[in-house]
Amino acid sequence: MASFLRTSIRPFRQVLDRRFLLPCCSVRWKSTVAQAKDSYSEINDELKREFQEIVGEKNVSSALVVREQHGKDESHHTCQPADLVVWPENKEQVSQIAKLCNDQCIPLIPFGSGTGLEGGVVAKKGGVSVDVTKMNEILDFNPDDFDVTVQAGVSRLQLNNYVKDSGLWFPVDPGADASLGGMASTSASGTNAVRYGTMRENVMNLEVVLADGRIINTAGEGRRTRKTSAGYNLTNLFVGSEGTLGIITKVTLKLYGIPESTASGVSSFPDVKSAVDAVVEILQCGLPMARIEFLDEVQIDACNKFSGLNYPVTPTLFLEFQGSENSVKEQAAVAADVIEGNGGSKFQWATELEERNKLWKARHNAWYADMALRPGCKGVSTDVCVPISRLPEIIVETKADIAASNITGKCLTPIVGHVGDGNFHCFIPIKPGDEGELQTVRDFTMRLSRRALAMGGTCTGEHGIGNGKQAMLPEEIGPTGLSVMKDIKSLLDPNWIMNPGKVFL
Amino acid sequence: MASFLRTSIRPFRQVLDRRFLLPCCSVRWKSTVAQAKDSYSEINDELKREFQEIVGEKNVSSALVVREQHGKDESHHTCQPADLVVWPENKEQVSQIAKLCNDQCIPLIPFGSGTGLEGGVVAKKGGVSVDVTKMNEILDFNPDDFDVTVQAGVSRLQLNNYVKDSGLWFPVDPGADASLGGMASTSASGTNAVRYGTMRENVMNLEVVLADGRIINTAGEGRRTRKTSAGYNLTNLFVGSEGTLGIITKVTLKLYGIPESTASGVSSFPDVKSAVDAVVEILQCGLPMARIEFLDEVQIDACNKFSGLNYPVTPTLFLEFQGSENSVKEQAAVAADVIEGNGGSKFQWATELEERNKLWKARHNAWYADMALRPGCKGVSTDVCVPISRLPEIIVETKADIAASNITGKCLTPIVGHVGDGNFHCFIPIKPGDEGELQTVRDFTMRLSRRALAMGGTCTGEHGIGNGKQAMLPEEIGPTGLSVMKDIKSLLDPNWIMNPGKVFL
Repeated sequence: MASFLRTSIRPFRQVLDRRFLLPCCSVRWKSTVAQAKDSYSEINDELKREFQEIVGEKNVSSALVVREQHGKDESHHTCQPADLVVWPENKEQVSQIAKLCNDQCIPLIPFGSGTGLEGGVVAKKGGVSVDVTKMNEILDFNPDDFDVTVQAGVSRLQLNNYVKDSGLWFPVDPGADASLGGMASTSASGTNAVRYGTMRENVMNLEVVLADGRIINTAGEGRRTRKTSAGYNLTNLFVGSEGTLGIITKVTLKLYGIPESTASGVSSFPDVKSAVDAVVEILQCGLPMARIEFLDEVQIDACNKFSGLNYPVTPTLFLEFQGSENSVKEQAAVAADVIEGNGGSKFQWATELEERNKLWKARHNAWYADMALRPGCKGVSTDVCVPISRLPEIIVETKADIAASNITGKCLTPIVGHVGDGNFHCFIPIKPGDEGELQTVRDFTMRLSRRALAMGGTCTGEHGIGNGKQAMLPEEIGPTGLSVMKDIKSLLDPNWIMNPGKVFL
Repeated sequence: MASFLRTSIRPFRQVLDRRFLLPCCSVRWKSTVAQAKDSYSEINDELKREFQEIVGEKNVSSALVVREQHGKDESHHTCQPADLVVWPENKEQVSQIAKLCNDQCIPLIPFGSGTGLEGGVVAKKGGVSVDVTKMNEILDFNPDDFDVTVQAGVSRLQLNNYVKDSGLWFPVDPGADASLGGMASTSASGTNAVRYGTMRENVMNLEVVLADGRIINTAGEGRRTRKTSAGYNLTNLFVGSEGTLGIITKVTLKLYGIPESTASGVSSFPDVKSAVDAVVEILQCGLPMARIEFLDEVQIDACNKFSGLNYPVTPTLFLEFQGSENSVKEQAAVAADVIEGNGGSKFQWATELEERNKLWKARHNAWYADMALRPGCKGVSTDVCVPISRLPEIIVETKADIAASNITGKCLTPIVGHVGDGNFHCFIPIKPGDEGELQTVRDFTMRLSRRALAMGGTCTGEHGIGNGKQAMLPEEIGPTGLSVMKDIKSLLDPNWIMNPGKVFL
């Protein structure tokens, strides 16, 4: 009630609804030209007390160090701390927080593991960071149905640790031990997507708190069917919405049987084109590949140094096969043939779990290996994705661009890619605070994104638009599609309090 | 311009926007309690001429027989003809049609192959049926990228015929030779979904004409990436929206390699429970099944009679395995073990294409076989989907319900199911015009849907809400989710001209 009483003395909520300016005849499309506000309310002591009333004193912090931890992710995006960090313990508290923020026009930024790469958690407009990590219970595990429902703060490894004794796993693997709510928010994917799909294909239902505090279950409460044609697909409207349409509080996910047999192999190639050509050909054979990862010579060198390996310093493929023991052997034989035909080296095999883990840990640590190339630097990761037939061309052109533009002064720009999906990253360590270097990298990223768009691709395969790619979204989607997205945003979040300044400029 | 000039003399567009009644302070949620209007404009001669101007005289018909063909699908839903049928030949014409309908408040019902099973094309409020079958070009086939872009009127078999020489196929197979625009609209699936997913997982991009004539490409024009995190997933907002948010004019689809080897098998079981238990166990083994179809004894009997087969008249599974020759053998051996352990008969094998086609044709003809059980009847198909562990229970309960309620007077209620997804259908032939029989079937369907909802299921796995399940949608999704869906509908189609009376009551 306190917030209601304050209505008359707080001036910030006079948001003009443009629709009132239109004549009231035929109901036509009335695009709102919507965007985040220039300014929102600051959180004063009175408001802080209200948040404390909702989640308890222990679950609120305004300490600078805590706010700073929540104002950045693993990328180069400049830390912008929220005014307050809160840790709700249940959906009802999240709902009350949203209502308070909506009534008082306070930005609300959902926070999971902070492992994003596009500045999605940066508090550009101040406000409250809502950390869901205390909502970390596995609520409903149904091994017979291959599904599980978890609170948004449960992490990927926590889940896999929980379900492994039932012979099941959740394969979406962005590398970092991200929260599943965060992974749903950014439509994460990673190395296994070529076989198992991304979060889009693996989220069956979401519980979401909307900006006004209402709670919805996108497929209906408790529903967990493999398919449905009942009404609009709200689940996939919220997957990938990056906290701008609501806060995800619960996620229902598909699980898969741990394959009977797994084998991984590494092959070195004389040049980028032959490696990527091999990938395209392997996919065309219809092999049910579990992973196909490309690492260029710069990346392999960094991995060798960081993880104590000794792979030849040339463009390289890491592959993984899954299935029955015979099927794995058969797949590997076909892949080996293709690789040989494209000039790749004989496979180096890793069939034991320990060896395989070493190999994939090196791959997962690529990001940290690259950051170690320039100690003290922060990473920029590009994220384009193109139709696979265009991969050789775009990677070759991009490496030429890297060489010509001499970004980061030393050509320290490794390329690593989930090439089975047509998705690859340039990992670029840059000096914090060096605006000139940042601008060079931004220009390079824009050129790369436009190169991908010209090939039917996207500027972001899995990291999201976040705080860095808003300028590309209109070019990628077009003005009408963008206008529809913004109108949906305004419909669900009329005060634009949900993670303002992200996705849209 | 003609339609603009008429504005002042046509009274029907005075739609009160409830938002104008609210105080203009904080922008709060303003649910519109939206629904289809009670009455829309009728199409007079002047309007007919306007449609003729858009698509040409040859592409407009008001002949009763044509309108009746477009006012019904393959189900029992009573034919309700539109006032006019038009055949646009390109997206620009569709856009002009939409603009005219929106300006004049004329219902617009998209029409593809008319093979739906939930009355989605019935013109409940009159209006214009927009038949997309003249938009049937395959526009952009990229065999190297495993994707194709087609106009909405291209049919499933037309597409597969086109791509097969490249060793590719599009696996989503609802049985009928449906248009791909229609399949996207209803989020169709069918027998292959257990392996390849539904339209939700296989549509990469859509071109959609919105109610006001604007044209969007849901993932951006020309984009065809395997994954993207760029902005909201508009593609899956339109997939399954049943023509209520816009008309799909172009579809970009994933394709797959035709498997090296395929084998199909049939096994008979002593009872329903043992057959369905075998399915659950086969899935738990992690076999990458291509198809697992269940047919109860009533269905097998009908198929035997209709397709000249002689399978034992007991609950039966049709299975299909795909992969390399060895992998198929291996999968089949594992499945055979499980089947034997659950009391199933030794597999009857069909490895040659001709034999397999005979088997699957019999399965696909199940619907027609059932209709032949009562000549002159129309079919009702239920469509619930539940978590697979609940399948034995719900099928056994439903068979008991069929027996107890003695629907259609003769227990002619076969059950057939895509049991690998937890989805099954009761096919019920009913006498047209027999209201008593229809009511008995409606009551049965409601009981079945609620039984599924109580088990975490959905009232429709693949047919859509259409004209028959609107009453179940609120129970399935809940009031808040439903309100969000309706608000999205009102946002994109403020005059509710797009396929009014479907999905929502």
